[in-house]
Amino acid sequence: MKRDPQCTFEFRVRYSETDQMRTYYNSRALEWFEMGRTELLRACGKPYRQMEAEGVMLPVREAHVEYLGRAQYDDLLRLSATMSKVGRAQVRVDVAIEHAGGGGMVCRGWTVHVVTNHDGRPIRPPGWFAELLDTGKTPGAR
Amino acid sequence: MKRDPQCTFEFRVRYSETDQMRTYYNSRALEWFEMGRTELLRACGKPYRQMEAEGVMLPVREAHVEYLGRAQYDDLLRLSATMSKVGRAQVRVDVAIEHAGGGGMVCRGWTVHVVTNHDGRPIRPPGWFAELLDTGKTPGAR
Amino acid sequence: MKRDPQCTFEFRVRYSETDQMRTYYNSRALEWFEMGRTELLRACGKPYRQMEAEGVMLPVREAHVEYLGRAQYDDLLRLSATMSKVGRAQVRVDVAIEHAGGGGMVCRGWTVHVVTNHDGRPIRPPGWFAELLDTGKTPGAR
Amino acid sequence: MKRDPQCTFEFRVRYSETDQMRTYYNSRALEWFEMGRTELLRACGKPYRQMEAEGVMLPVREAHVEYLGRAQYDDLLRLSATMSKVGRAQVRVDVAIEHAGGGGMVCRGWTVHVVTNHDGRPIRPPGWFAELLDTGKTPGAR
Repeated sequence: MKRDPQCTFEFRVRYSETDQMRTYYNSRALEWFEMGRTELLRACGKPYRQMEAEGVMLPVREAHVEYLGRAQYDDLLRLSATMSKVGRAQVRVDVAIEHAGGGGMVCRGWTVHVVTNHDGRPIRPPGWFAELLDTGKTPGAR
Repeated sequence: MKRDPQCTFEFRVRYSETDQMRTYYNSRALEWFEMGRTELLRACGKPYRQMEAEGVMLPVREAHVEYLGRAQYDDLLRLSATMSKVGRAQVRVDVAIEHAGGGGMVCRGWTVHVVTNHDGRPIRPPGWFAELLDTGKTPGAR
Repeated sequence: MKRDPQCTFEFRVRYSETDQMRTYYNSRALEWFEMGRTELLRACGKPYRQMEAEGVMLPVREAHVEYLGRAQYDDLLRLSATMSKVGRAQVRVDVAIEHAGGGGMVCRGWTVHVVTNHDGRPIRPPGWFAELLDTGKTPGAR
Repeated sequence: MKRDPQCTFEFRVRYSETDQMRTYYNSRALEWFEMGRTELLRACGKPYRQMEAEGVMLPVREAHVEYLGRAQYDDLLRLSATMSKVGRAQVRVDVAIEHAGGGGMVCRGWTVHVVTNHDGRPIRPPGWFAELLDTGKTPGAR
């Protein structure tokens, strides 16, 4: 059965991520989304760092965020990310961030990525990546 | 004739805004969008700082970005922002960022904002703000 | 025996923390130093968040960083922080960051903080804080 | 007569640069220092971007900041930067940031930079750079 690759982890809001409204500054959501992609690909057995070293990049093509609740310095948040295929050569990662202790949603959204080489030109996803998107697993991963 | 409030200005990409892909990091777009809102409201005769001092906040409710081109350290970019009304108590700011020298688009998108008081509770926009959204001018502004 | 409060933890470099030189951007060091202070005070039994809620702030008065080595996206780093007293009403936190796998130093430095109230006026450190600085423990902490 | 290269310019504090203490977050000082170096080298007739394109990098080796006053969202600040030679192959940039309207100091400090090639290896400063540091002018600049 197909299962979209996904992962969940917790992290704390840094002081540097707050603003004078006493909540997280809005652009931090996109930095947290990126942490989600990083941990998701690691959980799939193929860290993004290794992908880049092999010449496969995933630049962001589009991003969307809904801001649903406040989060203050040192709040413990839980992030869930899920990756799916969009068309032939694009990938979408959906992210939801909520208070770890059950305090409600913080934000949710998604990013869409093109698969490119180092020069930024779209390429056909390598076999292992296609398989990851189709089966939720990289070949050889347990 | 109604004309949506708008403004245009130029700025340079900071070194701190780049990443190892040698273009601007994706979350910077939202920081630039915020600069757009700041200069837009100043151009309308009502700096956002003054709005907050008077108890009217515009927290971001939703954000959307399309990434259209690269921008490197020290590139001179031109940002255009336009504000419009969404429903009764929401505001939308559309932003487009391109290379100032005619080098093409960098990104575009929008944010939607609720009008709230200091406690984050939605409020009816004050008269001058409603007039700004309706006429593109604040009362008394030349 | 007196022992300065200290803590050690590991974290990964985020993509957003890199720049086009393909290492971490220099200002991130200060954001990491702040993570060090956060975890140090938590380890001492008095999270900084709680200190602020009780009206005791530790704004940065001075900061110093030596950059000793590169660190790339996703590198696992180990941070050690130690807190000590400077004069009567100031606190100094020394931080060292190295590659977790033994790959050498990344940076080291320190920050000096004044103890203030919410209005930013210097205050005499509360008893528990003085004791923490003198003994390395908060009263009641195991 | 020798005159150290220097420049002065004004900029506004961005919302994203504030934190929940309602002043600028401490690491922003280093980002502003970098803006100072960028404008200083541009004023000298040799933008840093062009230096890097020619294979001359100035990675930060050491940084020091003294925090002297608050600065809030949209405050107009004035930054002055001065560059001087340290030993044979190092450069120091001193920066002072104050409120443009005469409202007092915000912060001051300095960074020390090694002159390196693209691989990060220290190199002898090219002739024009040595002349810039000695005379305050690049050859050919008016």
